[in-house]
Amino acid sequence: MLTNDVLQTMSNHRSIRSFTDKPITDEIIDTITTAARWASTSHHVQAYSIVTIKNADTKKDFAEWTGGQPWVASCPVFFVICGDFSRHARASKQYTAPFTVGGIEQLLVATVDASLVAQNMLLAAESLGLGGVMIGGIRNEPEKVATRLQLPKYVFPVMGLALGYPTRYPAQKPRLPQNVTVHEEHYKHHRHALETYDKTISSYYEARTKGADTRNWTARMAQYTEKNKRPHLKGFLQKQGFLTE
Amino acid sequence: MLTNDVLQTMSNHRSIRSFTDKPITDEIIDTITTAARWASTSHHVQAYSIVTIKNADTKKDFAEWTGGQPWVASCPVFFVICGDFSRHARASKQYTAPFTVGGIEQLLVATVDASLVAQNMLLAAESLGLGGVMIGGIRNEPEKVATRLQLPKYVFPVMGLALGYPTRYPAQKPRLPQNVTVHEEHYKHHRHALETYDKTISSYYEARTKGADTRNWTARMAQYTEKNKRPHLKGFLQKQGFLTE
Repeated sequence: MLTNDVLQTMSNHRSIRSFTDKPITDEIIDTITTAARWASTSHHVQAYSIVTIKNADTKKDFAEWTGGQPWVASCPVFFVICGDFSRHARASKQYTAPFTVGGIEQLLVATVDASLVAQNMLLAAESLGLGGVMIGGIRNEPEKVATRLQLPKYVFPVMGLALGYPTRYPAQKPRLPQNVTVHEEHYKHHRHALETYDKTISSYYEARTKGADTRNWTARMAQYTEKNKRPHLKGFLQKQGFLTE
Repeated sequence: MLTNDVLQTMSNHRSIRSFTDKPITDEIIDTITTAARWASTSHHVQAYSIVTIKNADTKKDFAEWTGGQPWVASCPVFFVICGDFSRHARASKQYTAPFTVGGIEQLLVATVDASLVAQNMLLAAESLGLGGVMIGGIRNEPEKVATRLQLPKYVFPVMGLALGYPTRYPAQKPRLPQNVTVHEEHYKHHRHALETYDKTISSYYEARTKGADTRNWTARMAQYTEKNKRPHLKGFLQKQGFLTE
């Protein structure tokens, strides 16, 4: 394996949920967001927006709305990364052109653009000694989030990102093996490839929970996919102008 | 602004579409994919797969199917990054648990997971002196791509990624201004903020096309959003087990 600072920063990732009191300076926020926004973007649409939140009341409400995640309140800065076609809607109005982002394709374009920027933001932060965690729970209460952040039509929260200086570095959560996730020339099933990984994840949780939870990866996933998740999301996205075709 | 190797690599991004003949070693592919797969993932689902393609015939067909993009054929390695819940479907079968990824939420989770890994892959590659371009056009012909790559149910192509050694580094395409894309505490419209950017983009294309195309950003975007894009995508995703609820 080759190595350098970029590869090391990537390979050192773990989600950080416990932060010191040290604030994040505006210079750091500017550095992170400026570098991150060089991410690729489909057809240069740049269909995302970032909202930076330091207000304690907003963070406290978001901690509750994301399902009770105290690190959302305790992090010095919380970001909401949104898919955003509102600038494009205004451009269309300016040129009196028809406008639609109602197909699944446009929702995916905005989701991808927002995700590429978000990954860069977290990695940029990690390279400066910060740590953080992405918060999918921001989609729990998209209506409340949109109202609080005054999101216009054609904007929706894709994820949250809590950043700060880590109090400690927990163990890394092992990833799926390379031969299960990387396929040569075409997709391949490896029938028994997950057995070892299941044992690894079982040991990881056993150590983390002091023996209270030893469920393996497949058992966790079987539970995760039992039910339709966040069924309210479809109606919210439609209200915001997506999924109408 | 602060700087380091990670921030510099990010800030130096431009899409590369012209590659030398130098092949990409398996060590480099392993290094890139291994580092990239440390990306964050919602609930540890790791709902993505990467297919690496060196086969000349496949790359040639993909160059055509992505709308005539010769760099897809000429790059030494082309990657298709997929959303992937097939491992989870098998886990559910193993535990005889109900299984659904039919809500919009699960489609977004897989799209985000795939995008986070893809952004890391491109940045990891750039840190090693390679360059590349993400290919949304892989969604032009998802049925043909899925058949060629033998993608099972619950797997769909999110994007392609062409990688190789750059023959040259074209000018960077300027990004939207910070004050348009980064909002403090809540979303803000800046009525005239795009006027300067429109001039910047107009000059960028004028230089790149030797005066043939001077359209600005808002004019380009007004055209981009005129019609529903890739309307076939919905049916394909439904066939793959998504968007059924």
